[in-house]
Amino acid sequence: MSQPPLSRIPPEIRCAQDYEALAEHFLAPPTLAYIAGGSGRDVTLAANAAAFAAWRIYPRLLRDVTAGHTRLALAGQPFAHPLLLAPVAFQKLAHAQAEIETARAAEATQTCMVASTLSSFALEDIARAGKAMRWFQLYFQPQRDATLDLVQRAEAAGYAALVVTLDASIQLPSLRAQRAGFAMPADCAPANLARHAAVALPALAPGDSRIFQGAMQTAPTWADLDWLLGQTRLPLWVKGVLHPQDAADLKARGVTGLIVSNHGGRTLDGAPASLDALPAIRAAVGAGFPLLLDSGIRSGGDAFKALALGADAVLIGRLQMHALSVAGALGVAHLLKLLREELEACMALAGCATLADIGPHSVVRG
Amino acid sequence: MSQPPLSRIPPEIRCAQDYEALAEHFLAPPTLAYIAGGSGRDVTLAANAAAFAAWRIYPRLLRDVTAGHTRLALAGQPFAHPLLLAPVAFQKLAHAQAEIETARAAEATQTCMVASTLSSFALEDIARAGKAMRWFQLYFQPQRDATLDLVQRAEAAGYAALVVTLDASIQLPSLRAQRAGFAMPADCAPANLARHAAVALPALAPGDSRIFQGAMQTAPTWADLDWLLGQTRLPLWVKGVLHPQDAADLKARGVTGLIVSNHGGRTLDGAPASLDALPAIRAAVGAGFPLLLDSGIRSGGDAFKALALGADAVLIGRLQMHALSVAGALGVAHLLKLLREELEACMALAGCATLADIGPHSVVRG
Amino acid sequence: MSQPPLSRIPPEIRCAQDYEALAEHFLAPPTLAYIAGGSGRDVTLAANAAAFAAWRIYPRLLRDVTAGHTRLALAGQPFAHPLLLAPVAFQKLAHAQAEIETARAAEATQTCMVASTLSSFALEDIARAGKAMRWFQLYFQPQRDATLDLVQRAEAAGYAALVVTLDASIQLPSLRAQRAGFAMPADCAPANLARHAAVALPALAPGDSRIFQGAMQTAPTWADLDWLLGQTRLPLWVKGVLHPQDAADLKARGVTGLIVSNHGGRTLDGAPASLDALPAIRAAVGAGFPLLLDSGIRSGGDAFKALALGADAVLIGRLQMHALSVAGALGVAHLLKLLREELEACMALAGCATLADIGPHSVVRG
Amino acid sequence: MSQPPLSRIPPEIRCAQDYEALAEHFLAPPTLAYIAGGSGRDVTLAANAAAFAAWRIYPRLLRDVTAGHTRLALAGQPFAHPLLLAPVAFQKLAHAQAEIETARAAEATQTCMVASTLSSFALEDIARAGKAMRWFQLYFQPQRDATLDLVQRAEAAGYAALVVTLDASIQLPSLRAQRAGFAMPADCAPANLARHAAVALPALAPGDSRIFQGAMQTAPTWADLDWLLGQTRLPLWVKGVLHPQDAADLKARGVTGLIVSNHGGRTLDGAPASLDALPAIRAAVGAGFPLLLDSGIRSGGDAFKALALGADAVLIGRLQMHALSVAGALGVAHLLKLLREELEACMALAGCATLADIGPHSVVRG
Repeated sequence: MSQPPLSRIPPEIRCAQDYEALAEHFLAPPTLAYIAGGSGRDVTLAANAAAFAAWRIYPRLLRDVTAGHTRLALAGQPFAHPLLLAPVAFQKLAHAQAEIETARAAEATQTCMVASTLSSFALEDIARAGKAMRWFQLYFQPQRDATLDLVQRAEAAGYAALVVTLDASIQLPSLRAQRAGFAMPADCAPANLARHAAVALPALAPGDSRIFQGAMQTAPTWADLDWLLGQTRLPLWVKGVLHPQDAADLKARGVTGLIVSNHGGRTLDGAPASLDALPAIRAAVGAGFPLLLDSGIRSGGDAFKALALGADAVLIGRLQMHALSVAGALGVAHLLKLLREELEACMALAGCATLADIGPHSVVRG
Repeated sequence: MSQPPLSRIPPEIRCAQDYEALAEHFLAPPTLAYIAGGSGRDVTLAANAAAFAAWRIYPRLLRDVTAGHTRLALAGQPFAHPLLLAPVAFQKLAHAQAEIETARAAEATQTCMVASTLSSFALEDIARAGKAMRWFQLYFQPQRDATLDLVQRAEAAGYAALVVTLDASIQLPSLRAQRAGFAMPADCAPANLARHAAVALPALAPGDSRIFQGAMQTAPTWADLDWLLGQTRLPLWVKGVLHPQDAADLKARGVTGLIVSNHGGRTLDGAPASLDALPAIRAAVGAGFPLLLDSGIRSGGDAFKALALGADAVLIGRLQMHALSVAGALGVAHLLKLLREELEACMALAGCATLADIGPHSVVRG
Repeated sequence: MSQPPLSRIPPEIRCAQDYEALAEHFLAPPTLAYIAGGSGRDVTLAANAAAFAAWRIYPRLLRDVTAGHTRLALAGQPFAHPLLLAPVAFQKLAHAQAEIETARAAEATQTCMVASTLSSFALEDIARAGKAMRWFQLYFQPQRDATLDLVQRAEAAGYAALVVTLDASIQLPSLRAQRAGFAMPADCAPANLARHAAVALPALAPGDSRIFQGAMQTAPTWADLDWLLGQTRLPLWVKGVLHPQDAADLKARGVTGLIVSNHGGRTLDGAPASLDALPAIRAAVGAGFPLLLDSGIRSGGDAFKALALGADAVLIGRLQMHALSVAGALGVAHLLKLLREELEACMALAGCATLADIGPHSVVRG
Repeated sequence: MSQPPLSRIPPEIRCAQDYEALAEHFLAPPTLAYIAGGSGRDVTLAANAAAFAAWRIYPRLLRDVTAGHTRLALAGQPFAHPLLLAPVAFQKLAHAQAEIETARAAEATQTCMVASTLSSFALEDIARAGKAMRWFQLYFQPQRDATLDLVQRAEAAGYAALVVTLDASIQLPSLRAQRAGFAMPADCAPANLARHAAVALPALAPGDSRIFQGAMQTAPTWADLDWLLGQTRLPLWVKGVLHPQDAADLKARGVTGLIVSNHGGRTLDGAPASLDALPAIRAAVGAGFPLLLDSGIRSGGDAFKALALGADAVLIGRLQMHALSVAGALGVAHLLKLLREELEACMALAGCATLADIGPHSVVRG
């Protein structure tokens, strides 16, 4: 039996990543497998971890960091620190109060939460739950009016940016979750989409592919992105970029910034580690263009490495769910505090008083 | 005890490679060891797997793939998809109806089956069992009239191409199979060769080598290949190429196309992984020359990687036997459906609507 | 139960590193975890070991080494051999007589002991315990008069050099030690600091960082180093250097020499292996500038590799504590004898009669 | 209890390396540990295996190898095949009849046996036991007349070459053997040296090193080698070379040929793999200069790789002892037959009719 969430910070948590192991006691095994697993055989999931492990951080001596801080601006918006809560669908899997708890943790820790299109609670409810800056993650819907409705609701609810996810038109399922017998519970419905009738996919003709003529019929294309850019005054980030040519093309199209991500290894098993893809993407978009990294961050040291290799900030996905399952808002807030202090400790030892001091010179391959 | 083959698709199969593990319940341990093992200590077998694992596939965004398909032409012949059933000897080891079942699966899935010289059923029987395009795999026989007889029978039975295998003049046995006590069952005789009297090898003189003056006396040479090219009007593929100079020489000799293969790691333990050998061979023969890859494919993602690195199509060997043992024609057909959809999913996520869109730019070393 | 220290050399010790395993019987598990563990998840600890393992030593033939020896001079001071006892805090963790025993072993083996600011016994007591050359390791204290007091006491007690450690302004704790339940025993107080009142850290303002505005407030800066250089006539070494630019800057500032070290993997988990950092630092400071290496030495062969890659001598940390726990002064002296003979054997087989014969040509990556 | 040697070829041996595992039943554990172990922690022993595993052999197609053979000449002497029996000391450890059995196996398989200075039987007895070409391995003795006596006895007994071993002036013991409690049995005395009084090492002065002023006092130098070259009309090979400069210097001194070897990983733990050292040594001595490789050969494929990377022939050490323990002369002869056929099979599949056809083009890194 899995335990109910704690109402205190668990004393056995000594670093952010400890929430990963502890969550095993708070989640049913199939749910744990679904949250922890990646697409297919976890090849990309493992590649993410290996990519961070391959780098070392240089200690630097005698630097005065007493005025140090972690503040930054992303496309003109101020952030207390470079850790964002990644959009994670169906947080009811981890906690009955789901995104409501997460939003409270975000407020308590001055963290930007990116709410998912597929959240368990409606985006308006999430917006009411916490006062920190919020972004809204958007999946293109099969029909443009449904997409537009989501955009307009996010604007109305005070979300400060849109993050459109483009790497999950189809998702290869997790063998780990399948073998554990995971099935999405009935109460994990996407609250934001309740008002939109489900759209039936077109019937396949003989010889048609279930992929090309089936699932991909409703996948967004460049034309959809151009349309979206014209529909909103919000900053528009694109999440899921791994190839430098896509990055350059998206920048040319006018998006606000990019999130280098392989969806936490949850879409294409065999995709590159996002950290491995980062340097070429930074080179493709040039210095100064807003760039975030997602997928594989398990510690403040990992965040430091991502910043060193070209990211302006990072998103935290699985650990968010793990901490949510262990202790709700308290757990997520504690997780963020730990991650931030781990990052600050790395900065201090690496002689970096500000995020701008972190760079490729700060790391070396191990 | 091993189970009899199923007459339904096993529900625990979630991806093509799952047939590998499931087959353990349907094959006697020595037979499983023989099918799954490679030559010697499985060094090349493991190298094949490692070669695929070393590559990552780039997701690409916003490409319209709704007109996508997997069709291709090989030397002017049309194929619904780039997955061929590799020539596997003695399929009675996996199923009593052997190649008859495989041929039915091939027809059901529009797959080209390459029937082996060493098939359990005669090539004419196989030809009658399924209507899909068939190729015939040829081993040079000790006497040219026996070889010619096979060629003419294949032509008469409607085989659309010949695949002459050149990398197995001798085969170093599988230690795994030997240790498991495998011996070829009496009913696994090569039906195609029943009419040809066995040819006694010449007696060895004192000081002669059992290899050089023994087994290799009947191995084909360039003169034999030239002779063969003059005996048939069928397209002639050569299977077993790993060195780029051999590839260039074979192209110059006039063969139709090449199959890069290490015989699934079953001949020379210590041979390079076929995928590792592929790029240099593509460079040696140039763009446009027909090139297939065999040895090590366990998923649609593996097929994608082979296509990205220079292959036009791939052959499926061991998984074919595994699926045959589990559920006969149904299993093989299901296997091919899974592989094809896995490939299509990779293509869709990689932004490739057609096979021609797949290229070296689609992958990166991990 | 852990055993009391032996009063004889344990017969099961066959090489220096054997003290590592044997110490498990002489230390309580939490104490063992604290001594053996590194910061965080032991990433840098493991990197140190891997860095040494990656190099091979070239045997050289027919060289006359009968006049061979291990003598050297460091900044004008003579040493019988290039093995120093690293400054290790709180040696009472390993033995009731702590640094007193270590000092006796140092005298018996003509070894330079570097006494820690955080020693269990006062630096004057350690000085009285053994007649070998001694250096004093200095941590900057929150107030300069406390620091100066330590310097002047070390000078008065006959310490021949200062080693100022700069890489441990903060230390990320060892998860291994935390999980083992380690807490510093009450009798492990820093005897040298007994006369100095504890300095309260300044209170944090809202929004302040516990790292930047907390722990790092008292961390030394370049100005502190410059001040220190003016306060002592002793040679001044800096310990904890990993980046070549820091090395060049410190040399320019006028320090006597550098100790390349990652604090045995005990400060920043994820820092580079000290051996990996060594060649670039030797290149940065040039030939002839005194350079020691610390962190990861477990054998005379490791010492040889460090000397080959640019170090003039090496420091022994954990093994010192392990041997101390097993057999006190006798254990430490035996350890040093073993390490020295292992080094001499490597030198003899590598054809190096003196330390000056060892160089980059003596090793090759494996 | 270990079994007595068999008088038949064991049926469970399917390849040469199988003798390694089977020997576990025929040797007492401490003896097995001594034979199988390397110096120190087996680092170089493992490096030898890894070096061979890193290479792949290219199959080549359609080559006519029916006139194939494995004959070669080394410095004018003819050999049926490129496999020599390495000098292994104290073969009584493996079999009561020791080198007598080995000599019989050598004769039966047309193999050159290199008899060790430290053989259990006298070199004259070994010479009488088998008619194949024999070489004599020479250790320099503390006094030149003892060395000269060995040389003259070897000449008188018909040994066709001398192999002077230079990499074992001191040997770091095997921890594996020490931990297994191995001690050299009383009956394992060096028969060849019975007539020479043991030479006492000079007493050490205070401060002297047991290595430099002790064991290394009697180690040979360049002057000793020059002297030896003037004492014999036999071809003189040097064994134990790993550095290319040593190789070039030895060639310039006039030796007949070199044996690249790390003594099977038994002298300096941490020395490079002999196969890794081979290409640079071949480059240093140039084409045509006789070069053998020793250390790490476990199969005919390993021998092929050594020949491809620059060796003219290889020596077989540990497997010789393993086969000797299992079945005496019969085992060693069987081992050599297996190795030769494994080599021939690799040659046949690699399209090499003669040893001269094997070259760097035959292999590729895996």
